[in-house]
Amino acid sequence: MTAVDFSAFVDRLATASGDAILPFFRTSLGVEDKSRGELFDPVTAADRAGEQVMRRLIRETFPGHGIIGEEFGDEDRDAEFVWVLDPIDGTRSFILGMPIWGTLIGLLRGGKPCFGLMHQPFIGERFSSDGASAIWRGRSGERHLRTRACSSLSDAMLMSTSPTMFTGAEAEAFNGVSAETKLTRWSADCYAYAMLAAGHVDLVVEADLKPFDIVALIPIVEGAGGVVTTWEGGPATDGGRIVAAGDRRIHEAALERLAKG
Amino acid sequence: MTAVDFSAFVDRLATASGDAILPFFRTSLGVEDKSRGELFDPVTAADRAGEQVMRRLIRETFPGHGIIGEEFGDEDRDAEFVWVLDPIDGTRSFILGMPIWGTLIGLLRGGKPCFGLMHQPFIGERFSSDGASAIWRGRSGERHLRTRACSSLSDAMLMSTSPTMFTGAEAEAFNGVSAETKLTRWSADCYAYAMLAAGHVDLVVEADLKPFDIVALIPIVEGAGGVVTTWEGGPATDGGRIVAAGDRRIHEAALERLAKG
Repeated sequence: MTAVDFSAFVDRLATASGDAILPFFRTSLGVEDKSRGELFDPVTAADRAGEQVMRRLIRETFPGHGIIGEEFGDEDRDAEFVWVLDPIDGTRSFILGMPIWGTLIGLLRGGKPCFGLMHQPFIGERFSSDGASAIWRGRSGERHLRTRACSSLSDAMLMSTSPTMFTGAEAEAFNGVSAETKLTRWSADCYAYAMLAAGHVDLVVEADLKPFDIVALIPIVEGAGGVVTTWEGGPATDGGRIVAAGDRRIHEAALERLAKG
Repeated sequence: MTAVDFSAFVDRLATASGDAILPFFRTSLGVEDKSRGELFDPVTAADRAGEQVMRRLIRETFPGHGIIGEEFGDEDRDAEFVWVLDPIDGTRSFILGMPIWGTLIGLLRGGKPCFGLMHQPFIGERFSSDGASAIWRGRSGERHLRTRACSSLSDAMLMSTSPTMFTGAEAEAFNGVSAETKLTRWSADCYAYAMLAAGHVDLVVEADLKPFDIVALIPIVEGAGGVVTTWEGGPATDGGRIVAAGDRRIHEAALERLAKG
């Protein structure tokens, strides 16, 4: 079975998780759950509901596959195929009602990302890739995703999630890169990588990522012509400190600048 | 004619400006316009196209009304009714492909805001108000907007557009408020006020706003039960330094904290 065969199944996972998550989006925080004497937290409820429905479908359809998920831990992590799930990437945006969170569904084969999808069910758009080509699908149709050329950091638009994700020397290294770029914009989460794949952003520099924050996005960036590695240039699959670029020239420039600290 | 009568006309303006702007969203920056030897700038082209179509409809329908717009200046600013237009509030988000910009359409009567609408045509959602009640309309239906209760800055979620909008003592005053809140989030533009009206955000503190950045949002915040003034507690209509809150108690607390500097 090739990676391409998973495409329709991944769409089923996206539709099912979107249906599970959306009823919690833009609902009130802090509504008391009287049966348990606790505060009801819609983002946690949505995260769990989204991951449960995806895990159930995976177990039913591919009982031999492994699963790594944000909410319910790992199952069969050493299987040939392992699904890597983050039902809500961008929980702060979700809490604030901002529709720039996404559901991330990645698939590893032999430890390497072979399929990835990011779904924003409120807007109704999906970014997906088998690593060879990447597509956007939305209410107005679909199109291929291509990163754009950018030869120098001074022309680059940089996105990242939050200054608080960098500690100590990391913050200095990040600030060094940021200072050389044309524009730095925060609060993007998975949308930073999607917009890089779509050719609107040139560089994403982050730290402290978990595998489920990045695995689904690797094929999308690579399939659109970009490159994504750790700050040291290694595979991004395990998360940690990540650099993604639409053009290899600024990827190299960013790695060099980050190494200087 | 009461303000309520304008509701259908404002929806026409929103639909027409959305149709004019959307073709430029998520298109490539920097495509050269060979006829003029200049770089084509989609956000400027979209801003102008959106404002032109709204000005034409207003002139045709209400020739005695004034217009204040971001792109084409003022006409009949002293008329009884004056339209205040910002075709793309959040141009940085627009440039980066992030769907969290909005078209702002406000109406002043005798210098006071009497109708406001914010439209996000890519997502397909509208926030509007005659100042007495505020509604959200989207693909899944419509509902009334209500701000939420928040009695203390320490429980408040704060949004603002960018640290660079504050100069000198303003930055210190902003940081003083921000440090007392539960969470501060950037890059929101008009969505900060929309999410405050919808009860997901408690406080918005900004500076350096133009009238067209805020006039349309005043009725939406007030119609949802919130309060919006300058940092000194005066009318927000002229822009400048603005505080909006969903609950009067944290509005007062924020004004006091800002006055301390």
